Amino acid sequence: MSSADLTDARSLVDRARQGEPRAVARLISWVEDGSPGLAEVMAALGAAPGTAYVIGVTGAPGVGKSTTTSALVGAYRARGKRVGVIAVDPTSPFSGGALLGDRIRMQQHSTDAGVFIRSMASRGHLGGIAASTPQAIRILEAAGFDVVLVETVGVGQSEVEVAGTADATVVLLAPGMGDGIQAAKAGILEVGDILCVNKADRDGADATVREVRHMLSLGSSPDGWQVPVVTSVAARGEIDDLVAALDARQAWLGEDDHLRQRRRLRAEAEIVALATGRVRQRLAQALPPELADDVASGRIDPYSAADRLLADDRMAP
Amino acid sequence: MSSADLTDARSLVDRARQGEPRAVARLISWVEDGSPGLAEVMAALGAAPGTAYVIGVTGAPGVGKSTTTSALVGAYRARGKRVGVIAVDPTSPFSGGALLGDRIRMQQHSTDAGVFIRSMASRGHLGGIAASTPQAIRILEAAGFDVVLVETVGVGQSEVEVAGTADATVVLLAPGMGDGIQAAKAGILEVGDILCVNKADRDGADATVREVRHMLSLGSSPDGWQVPVVTSVAARGEIDDLVAALDARQAWLGEDDHLRQRRRLRAEAEIVALATGRVRQRLAQALPPELADDVASGRIDPYSAADRLLADDRMAP
Repeated sequence: MSSADLTDARSLVDRARQGEPRAVARLISWVEDGSPGLAEVMAALGAAPGTAYVIGVTGAPGVGKSTTTSALVGAYRARGKRVGVIAVDPTSPFSGGALLGDRIRMQQHSTDAGVFIRSMASRGHLGGIAASTPQAIRILEAAGFDVVLVETVGVGQSEVEVAGTADATVVLLAPGMGDGIQAAKAGILEVGDILCVNKADRDGADATVREVRHMLSLGSSPDGWQVPVVTSVAARGEIDDLVAALDARQAWLGEDDHLRQRRRLRAEAEIVALATGRVRQRLAQALPPELADDVASGRIDPYSAADRLLADDRMAP
Repeated sequence: MSSADLTDARSLVDRARQGEPRAVARLISWVEDGSPGLAEVMAALGAAPGTAYVIGVTGAPGVGKSTTTSALVGAYRARGKRVGVIAVDPTSPFSGGALLGDRIRMQQHSTDAGVFIRSMASRGHLGGIAASTPQAIRILEAAGFDVVLVETVGVGQSEVEVAGTADATVVLLAPGMGDGIQAAKAGILEVGDILCVNKADRDGADATVREVRHMLSLGSSPDGWQVPVVTSVAARGEIDDLVAALDARQAWLGEDDHLRQRRRLRAEAEIVALATGRVRQRLAQALPPELADDVASGRIDPYSAADRLLADDRMAP
């Protein structure tokens, strides 16, 4: 990054702070691309600690993540809050896909200046979405958004982890098909601060609520937060219980040291993802082709090969 | 792992080589759990180089991955081949979820001794699914399976990458909704060795084929393989063109050095994933809480924090 670009970066940060959508969008693109000099931008942004309420929304395809996200945007807008949406989900209507009805519901927000919607692809970038999503959140916070909704599809390790580092993580389920069990298997349930059975007007909603409550009773939350199970029919805008649970969570975060602890967890995930991304690049470049050949042909097992690669890396200047 | 366990491990490997399903299942569980002493098992397995035809099947939710996988199982079984299925997809009927019709289709295979079906959760394990899937493939190869189908949901970076390291990666699409564009955005298209427009009896199939062909014409395959675009109606068992494309791919892999190159790529991904997993653990343990606090409160940016963590790691004994 040249000094001209750097001046540009600082001016972008200033304009983002004033809430200019194009500046916000451009900064997030830099994060996604892993542009050189990004550390400078992040340093400038870093001076402002996070103040937004960051809500992760996750769940398997078809449970109504985008519809719920859209309804939450509406609820917070009705309170006059500025809302940012980050969709880490290629199947989300926020990313341009999905059904027409969903798209129309989104459009009412896309013309609202108090709403910023961003789809993140984040492929190939250092540290992946585990690093770039917290950075995008940081940019939205600096730009003065009060609430940031992060929608991730509840499949894929990194995607679930990203949702799990929000201030409040909503895990959505839908009645039927042993959804609770599926979610547990996919490791989604354990990241939930609030479990919400959507499409609660359908048959089997009560059974799903019972099933999920039973699963919750088997574990316990280490930080003392009691995970509530609520219901919603997001497609009809019936999300009052979910919003109430989110309010309760926000109030709880304000007590004691809870918010700081959660933010530290997010920062830890971000730092480790960035550092690991760098090491991965270094290791991939340092890997001798013969070593891969030896593993491919069965002359050496992959664990021993990984040990050798790590030993060489340690010895490297 | 005690020496008794180790004897157990060797006997398991022997029994897996004789094709005993329980031994195969248990070894894969060890891989998933990242059991200590796994290196021994892998070393014993490693002596047998891979001989199975490994086919990755990926695509967005709803394009018919499981139905296609099931139809492929049927096609290879009709040729007398032994088929292993690894489902890295919590929404797959192979993992116990999904629609009743799909489940019934699967059941015909679940009672067939020539078919081994395994759903992998692979959470938390060292290196994640990027490391554990190649190892599960290795176990199935050692157990004498001729074809290994790996079904992954086409969302999530690691999941797409896993499918991409197969000998042949089939990217499934369905007509309508700009699926090709969605797939390109999610980074699925680029891993495809064969693109298959499923549900080709629906409106818009021809348009999707044209769209995908156009996208392909923009790039080129570095190894000289010409990526074909075929159509299927897997739910009706109409997958002849897909099978023909897979046969052509298998023949091409037999020429020159193609298969060895592809296997080396898979070994590279496996080694780097295992090594990176170890480093990630080390870094997460070494991360000073103050550093995370400093990032959370904005006193230092995450890039600088990652640099500091890496520098400390290098200095560590």
